[in-house]
Amino acid sequence: MKALVYGGPGQKSWTDVPDPTLHSPTDAIVRVDTTTICGTDLHILKGDVPAVTVGRILGHEGVGTITEVGSAVSNLKVGDRVIISCIKSCGHCSNCSNGLYSHCLGDEGASGIGWVFGHLIDGTQAEFVRVPYADNSLHKLPEGVSDDQGVMLSDILPTGFEIGVQYGRVKPGDVVAVIGAGPVGLAAIATAGLYGAASIIAIDLDENRLERARDFGATDTVVSGPADWKDRVLALTDGAGVDVAIEAVGIPATFTMATEIVRPGGNIANVGVHGQPVDLHLETLWIQNINISMGLVNANTTKMLLKLVASKKLPAEKLATHHFNFDQFLEAYDTFSRAAETKALKVVISR
Amino acid sequence: MKALVYGGPGQKSWTDVPDPTLHSPTDAIVRVDTTTICGTDLHILKGDVPAVTVGRILGHEGVGTITEVGSAVSNLKVGDRVIISCIKSCGHCSNCSNGLYSHCLGDEGASGIGWVFGHLIDGTQAEFVRVPYADNSLHKLPEGVSDDQGVMLSDILPTGFEIGVQYGRVKPGDVVAVIGAGPVGLAAIATAGLYGAASIIAIDLDENRLERARDFGATDTVVSGPADWKDRVLALTDGAGVDVAIEAVGIPATFTMATEIVRPGGNIANVGVHGQPVDLHLETLWIQNINISMGLVNANTTKMLLKLVASKKLPAEKLATHHFNFDQFLEAYDTFSRAAETKALKVVISR
Repeated sequence: MKALVYGGPGQKSWTDVPDPTLHSPTDAIVRVDTTTICGTDLHILKGDVPAVTVGRILGHEGVGTITEVGSAVSNLKVGDRVIISCIKSCGHCSNCSNGLYSHCLGDEGASGIGWVFGHLIDGTQAEFVRVPYADNSLHKLPEGVSDDQGVMLSDILPTGFEIGVQYGRVKPGDVVAVIGAGPVGLAAIATAGLYGAASIIAIDLDENRLERARDFGATDTVVSGPADWKDRVLALTDGAGVDVAIEAVGIPATFTMATEIVRPGGNIANVGVHGQPVDLHLETLWIQNINISMGLVNANTTKMLLKLVASKKLPAEKLATHHFNFDQFLEAYDTFSRAAETKALKVVISR
Repeated sequence: MKALVYGGPGQKSWTDVPDPTLHSPTDAIVRVDTTTICGTDLHILKGDVPAVTVGRILGHEGVGTITEVGSAVSNLKVGDRVIISCIKSCGHCSNCSNGLYSHCLGDEGASGIGWVFGHLIDGTQAEFVRVPYADNSLHKLPEGVSDDQGVMLSDILPTGFEIGVQYGRVKPGDVVAVIGAGPVGLAAIATAGLYGAASIIAIDLDENRLERARDFGATDTVVSGPADWKDRVLALTDGAGVDVAIEAVGIPATFTMATEIVRPGGNIANVGVHGQPVDLHLETLWIQNINISMGLVNANTTKMLLKLVASKKLPAEKLATHHFNFDQFLEAYDTFSRAAETKALKVVISR
């Protein structure tokens, strides 16, 4: 088959590799019909994730059709159309039993991290993929939900919702600020209303993205370039700060921004993937009764979010801005890596 | 009357000052029968809290007897024996209505901080003290609860419980580590069992304090000096780390220690009062699904904790290691400021 293979920092190719085979009775093989590219894939290509070794097939998002199941797979059959979750979870270990699928201790990926595709095992940017713990890691797609919609449920919608909105403890009446209106930030914006946010402030350097944010439910937007950005955010609250600040960028400056706009008693939900430490100003924050959460998605809300997508309550399809075929894979990467210029949110790549 | 008056960095005196008077119909005047000294008072004396101005009467803990009440005080009367909470709370503002008494917006202390005694208004290290919002800031002491017990409910027991145990979300079966076995750390140790902690590991440099920690409920102790301290803590868990790490010191090194021993999905509760920023290693922590809380006590569990003390479920009196009279106030400060040497936990000063 063909697959997108990591060749070391800065190198990738769409090339021939062996077809995947079942390793375990709990595995399934899925023909990938649609996949996409994540910002994390770009980090890997920069060499920022040393656990990814040369020869690894990248990608952790996809929609496909089951072509083979192991003998222990009980809820799925050949021909089922499925969402491939970015998180593998055995469903049985002590972490899975607490819903902490992101730290599944099942033996695929010895590090005990639920994110294995395109990281510790071969991923979804390929014609076929082996899916461990298939019963818990694949979700049947109902009729009427498109591939464009389904592929957004592999990672970004659950990530924005679980790590942004749920970990941020959004509650009815809250003022929620989302720093960074990229795909995951937009997913947080799109789902903050599920817990009754009164207003949702999108904050970004890019006015185009802020315009998009309104399509996903942002009630206010603030361009973060000008020096008065913070005053403009506080003016949208009662002056005391936002109830929840969601960081969806992953650099020290945006994390610090979150600490500057949260009110006493509020929550900071870090969603961004960080590459360096940040200064935490405990000398002023210790007395503020704030809470800082962070984490990798558990993807244990995927089925619930799928229902909302199916009933048109979440505009998942609006995240798909550019479409490519598998033989245009490198072009898709190029478009996504120049997102500021191409205005790409998610690039969707299909057979 | 006599009072302990701040004279600028490094300076204090037990000296004559005017008696306090009612300022507002919601005030009460309390004759202080017993008070104590907090680590925060030592910080103030070093000049670390610039909001405290020269001439301020220090202290935010006490047990006393009401001598006068304003016309709007409805639940208390002259002669009532009361705990003076370290937090003033109007009970009516938007923060108080959410239980966030620590950030009461009532007008005593313009900054909107619930901790005003010995900070923004005159405090409890005096023969008498004016207590704003008396109905919400004083708690009647039942017969059979001693001054030694009551004064521990002004600050340290609620602080250890609310900011350590509750904010740390301790739940049944948890392994809880408490870094720093000073008075507030011991208060967290003493109350962690209320939510069913399976084991409580006390961590400190001082072996004497670790010995004390066992009296308050610590099941294990680890001296933090030796390089293998972390391995010794992990050996007391399933190897994955503790469920809750409570930081009760307030320096960068101990905060970082907490991040090194918490398991994926666990909680860090910062109780320490910090004077400088800390490096938060988001480059490794973002994927760990941890939660970091911090804050000033709300003292909205004081009445509940008082019941537990009254029914002998919490050994509050064991925190009182040294006793002095008001005319030995400077000696009490000296003993407390040399706690490592004198083995003082709380010094109790009475009429």
